[in-house]
Amino acid sequence: MPRQVDRSARLETVRDAVVEIATQEGFAAVTIRRVAAHAGASTSVVTHYVSSREELLRIAVRGEVAARRAQAEAAVEGRTGAPAVRALVEWAVLGPGDDGHRFWLALVVGAQTEPVLRQELDGFNRWWGALLARCSAQMAPPPADPAALADALDVVVDGLVLAGFEERAAWPVSRRRRVLDALLVPLGL
Amino acid sequence: MPRQVDRSARLETVRDAVVEIATQEGFAAVTIRRVAAHAGASTSVVTHYVSSREELLRIAVRGEVAARRAQAEAAVEGRTGAPAVRALVEWAVLGPGDDGHRFWLALVVGAQTEPVLRQELDGFNRWWGALLARCSAQMAPPPADPAALADALDVVVDGLVLAGFEERAAWPVSRRRRVLDALLVPLGL
Repeated sequence: MPRQVDRSARLETVRDAVVEIATQEGFAAVTIRRVAAHAGASTSVVTHYVSSREELLRIAVRGEVAARRAQAEAAVEGRTGAPAVRALVEWAVLGPGDDGHRFWLALVVGAQTEPVLRQELDGFNRWWGALLARCSAQMAPPPADPAALADALDVVVDGLVLAGFEERAAWPVSRRRRVLDALLVPLGL
Repeated sequence: MPRQVDRSARLETVRDAVVEIATQEGFAAVTIRRVAAHAGASTSVVTHYVSSREELLRIAVRGEVAARRAQAEAAVEGRTGAPAVRALVEWAVLGPGDDGHRFWLALVVGAQTEPVLRQELDGFNRWWGALLARCSAQMAPPPADPAALADALDVVVDGLVLAGFEERAAWPVSRRRRVLDALLVPLGL
């Protein structure tokens, strides 16, 4: 009698394999063959769940991005205005950890050449921009130029992601917090 | 009679090929075979000049990094203190252009797994840190915490590099300048 394999557990294993390979080596290294080997399955098992490499990437990235959204929403819960904006930025900088940031870097780099990654990245950024705009509109006083504030905050977040990889060792939390204070306090955060 | 090929012109073509492939597809895509094809030469021509892929990467990155250093030095020439620091940051953000930033992103990502890239990146960053420290020490008043200022500036530069790739279109200069003003003016720059 064939062993029953739980469909959702199997899919999760496949998704995890995509995320792990992309995080370590970039999305160009993600192939159905590599994912199957990483997940300890045959390629036909993988293609039983997804019809193409593109669908494989979409499912994996969408799952990862949904998890990030849930974390970000939890970080702002119960806060409004400046404390909500600050909590959101702190979550983006301190929450996902080194592997989370490495995955993000891989996603932004991959989106330059892979339309499916671009689409998922755009979707996340639209959601992020809307949440940030909603929280910053509640600031007292409200920002004079909300778009300029949003750009500055995105630069601070992306800067802490990329600068964290410039050196051999990742930046400790205290070092990241010092930069956040230096750049965010003058913005009223 | 064999055609005379100028050695330095040949080497430059090979170096350019490495930089172009790395910029477009990342350093993992740089192989002696790909570089030869890109440069319109045979692999034996490439291996006549470099003994290994590692040496190929080192020569190409070192040449590119030396060009950046010369541009940065030209940007600060004749300036001291805050105007020198601001000129340096503006050069890093506005000088290299999209392909320059794409190359930088590829270098930082590649340095996570390729020791030769890590070595060249470390060398550039030591030089950059020393130049920034020298200019910021001349600020009036001098920064209370020079290391904290250096971290904040590195985050601003890296943030503008990475954020520039989050959307489908690159950020125009005016948008980058607006972020620089919002984040640097409070730092006395």
